Amino acid sequence: MLENVQYLIRPEKEEEKTRLKAEQEKLAALQMKLKEHKVPVLVLFEGWGSAGKGTLIGEVIHNIDPRFFKVATFTTRTEEEKRYPFLHRYFATIPEAGKFRFLDSGWMDEVTKGVIEKELDEAEYKKRIESIRRFERSLTDNGYVVLKFFLHISEKEQKKRLDGLEESKDTKWRVGKFDRYQNKHYDECAAVYEKYFEDTITPTAPWYIIDAKSRKWAELQILETMNQAIETALQNASLSVPIPQNSFPLAKCEKLADISLKDKSLTEEEYREKLQSLQAELKELHNRLYKKRIPVIIAYEGWDAAGKGGNIKRITESLDPRGFEVHPIASPEPHEKARHFLWRFWTRLPKTGHIAIFDRTWYGRVMVERLEGFCSENDWKRAYNEINEFEKELHDGGAVIIKFWVQIDKDTQLERFTERQNTPEKQWKITDEDWRNREKWDQYEEAVNEMIAKTNTVYAPWHILESVDKKYARIKALQIVVEELKKVL
Amino acid sequence: MLENVQYLIRPEKEEEKTRLKAEQEKLAALQMKLKEHKVPVLVLFEGWGSAGKGTLIGEVIHNIDPRFFKVATFTTRTEEEKRYPFLHRYFATIPEAGKFRFLDSGWMDEVTKGVIEKELDEAEYKKRIESIRRFERSLTDNGYVVLKFFLHISEKEQKKRLDGLEESKDTKWRVGKFDRYQNKHYDECAAVYEKYFEDTITPTAPWYIIDAKSRKWAELQILETMNQAIETALQNASLSVPIPQNSFPLAKCEKLADISLKDKSLTEEEYREKLQSLQAELKELHNRLYKKRIPVIIAYEGWDAAGKGGNIKRITESLDPRGFEVHPIASPEPHEKARHFLWRFWTRLPKTGHIAIFDRTWYGRVMVERLEGFCSENDWKRAYNEINEFEKELHDGGAVIIKFWVQIDKDTQLERFTERQNTPEKQWKITDEDWRNREKWDQYEEAVNEMIAKTNTVYAPWHILESVDKKYARIKALQIVVEELKKVL
Repeated sequence: MLENVQYLIRPEKEEEKTRLKAEQEKLAALQMKLKEHKVPVLVLFEGWGSAGKGTLIGEVIHNIDPRFFKVATFTTRTEEEKRYPFLHRYFATIPEAGKFRFLDSGWMDEVTKGVIEKELDEAEYKKRIESIRRFERSLTDNGYVVLKFFLHISEKEQKKRLDGLEESKDTKWRVGKFDRYQNKHYDECAAVYEKYFEDTITPTAPWYIIDAKSRKWAELQILETMNQAIETALQNASLSVPIPQNSFPLAKCEKLADISLKDKSLTEEEYREKLQSLQAELKELHNRLYKKRIPVIIAYEGWDAAGKGGNIKRITESLDPRGFEVHPIASPEPHEKARHFLWRFWTRLPKTGHIAIFDRTWYGRVMVERLEGFCSENDWKRAYNEINEFEKELHDGGAVIIKFWVQIDKDTQLERFTERQNTPEKQWKITDEDWRNREKWDQYEEAVNEMIAKTNTVYAPWHILESVDKKYARIKALQIVVEELKKVL
Repeated sequence: MLENVQYLIRPEKEEEKTRLKAEQEKLAALQMKLKEHKVPVLVLFEGWGSAGKGTLIGEVIHNIDPRFFKVATFTTRTEEEKRYPFLHRYFATIPEAGKFRFLDSGWMDEVTKGVIEKELDEAEYKKRIESIRRFERSLTDNGYVVLKFFLHISEKEQKKRLDGLEESKDTKWRVGKFDRYQNKHYDECAAVYEKYFEDTITPTAPWYIIDAKSRKWAELQILETMNQAIETALQNASLSVPIPQNSFPLAKCEKLADISLKDKSLTEEEYREKLQSLQAELKELHNRLYKKRIPVIIAYEGWDAAGKGGNIKRITESLDPRGFEVHPIASPEPHEKARHFLWRFWTRLPKTGHIAIFDRTWYGRVMVERLEGFCSENDWKRAYNEINEFEKELHDGGAVIIKFWVQIDKDTQLERFTERQNTPEKQWKITDEDWRNREKWDQYEEAVNEMIAKTNTVYAPWHILESVDKKYARIKALQIVVEELKKVL
């Protein structure tokens, strides 16, 4: 591909100048429309060492209001970054609605370097490619413009540039070890890049190979591509996108209505006894997973007043406070709403050896956001798959994922609501919204049934906690957590 | 102090048990009040190695809803953390209103270890102490409860515990090199700690030395202290606090009305010429400060429509996009409003070698927040000093701070507002709020005069950019930036 890439034909100097000016003005005008239509743009600059990534980003941003873009540079992962899944640092830097994010190399660079340096074997490479394809698709599905540029120069040109940089002591530091390696093994590297392009060219996030020998000409190619892509995105802003078919193994599950809540209770004595022994066991397991550096994600969903808070407490009581965090999830704040709906979860993931407990989760997308119309039908229908993909990433990254649905019946909820209303210290726990949600019980039940059926993957299955007797639910939760952790320890 | 510390007298077993239960219940009840009154609580656990910090944090949080607290552990700074000012990582972890943050050692540990390991000399130690005193005071002034516990055990007890831990291979890893060092040089370390206590005991954030030989008794001491402190804080929640006198050297400055805006203009030709040469110079300086790892903060304030955006653009045009970030500052989001007003700036600081440009700043506290009543009079009156302290921290951390006030007169603003209103592509730049602010011009002018007079420190002085002719203001800004950078390069 690199060898035979069909470049556009470079125009004459005068024409180039005119066209460049026109595109620069166009971009300046388009940024306002992006802001107005709340479209986020992610621009990835990859390319050969010394192909001019930094310089070209510098040229492009001249045409954009500094408040509307940010630039990020990725280098070798720090020790801290290594403790999160592969996509974590990339997901964390996606732009907000209406803004640009320019990346000076990113996931392509990391993966291809891994291959060249023989740190990624074939199987791992494939896994990375899958992650990347899903990541990019999930962004474009959610209205992101994703632009991928590869700045291409020839072996000879690269050598010339590296030599030039090394001549002056002011620029010498810019030539890294890998740049020289790349140049010496140009063909071998090119083959890795070509393979990568083939593996990651998609209709919604294609690759653009840019002839980067001349800066001006490279800038023109980039601006024309960017402007065109942005215009297309603006036209398509309200279009729905295809809903991918689920491709993950699902386990069978019951409907909520078929789950018996009867006889799921414990005496106070049984409860105390089991609580103590399970908590002791969990404490010990927490220690071991800390040492083995396994990240754990525990997700709680359930009816209002089902007893999530008390259930979580029985888990955390036995954990070393330095090794876990509870994330209460409310409606998203403005800066969260302005990004992909999974962003606020990606940025709250536990590092290796830590436990993150989510009190309400990303499943809000297919429950409250669906029922209250906070997102489009296309959005929530797509979300089942996006969620399965998200959890697959976590699973592949070595995480244990435990998902709880805390189940009660409608009468029990009424009892608890009424008790909360009548007990002064508990009144803060009950709001008008809870009563309003209760009125939609049947709609919610339908949504929950669909949600569980579609996201009950074998690598991250749902566990139902029958919680008419809270003691029973707590013990069951502890048992499941202990069991799941034992599997990996 | 450690030697002669007057502990409370440990009660009999039965009494201890009763009191412990009472305090646990009290804390559980108080957390609701904290939430209601939006009081944040920062609890710092320091102490000898193996004194039981982790265990005791674990006991205390049993009584708190997991959604209301977070725990953080600080260890040796990573390379990344070293690129920010000393207080950065601590300021970043302060709790939100109504929530607890427990720290498993923090700034005391870092500073005393620095002294013990001879990495901090006397002068640096003093600087750290000053930073810490200001930090803690600024938190308590802003309604934070700051609790500092030191878990104390004897040399003998420590030795016994370390030996015990090392006996089992499951716990051996918990004994660090420094723990052993501490035990071997117990008296020497104790002297450093005692000096630290003396230096950082303050009326609003005193030290509590906890007899940590018995876990139960330690827990009781901690809970009693915490509960009492929280109750006091709740009673004082609406009290004003003393406004510290400015203790930083101020430079003289003019009132806005006395600044002549006449004859501050450039011809197009002069502008082009100077722009080009200054931008080239700045570009080169940016490179050098990147290599010298100096952080730079450029703060923009000014009248609406004074030309901040265009001015910033002329700066950023010459910068390497990988080395700067522009932070547009709007009204704070909920999670920002729930913390100290400087938190959102502390978390946006540039790392060494980078430039952060703030389009509006922390000075909002003494302008819009003051005039619109978004904070109390006591709050904004205190803020001048808090801001001077903040900038002092940055300055002491090696940062260059450049503050611009972009000045125009009232007529010029009207002209520009009208033009914006009448130009379709510029309409987004003008809102009803701008017109409302304009009506308060005189009040703002008074506030700005006071602000400049009180924060015109010699280490972070204000620069006025006369911007009736925007070209003039841009060149002046560039000249000042170049000049200030040259001073440190």
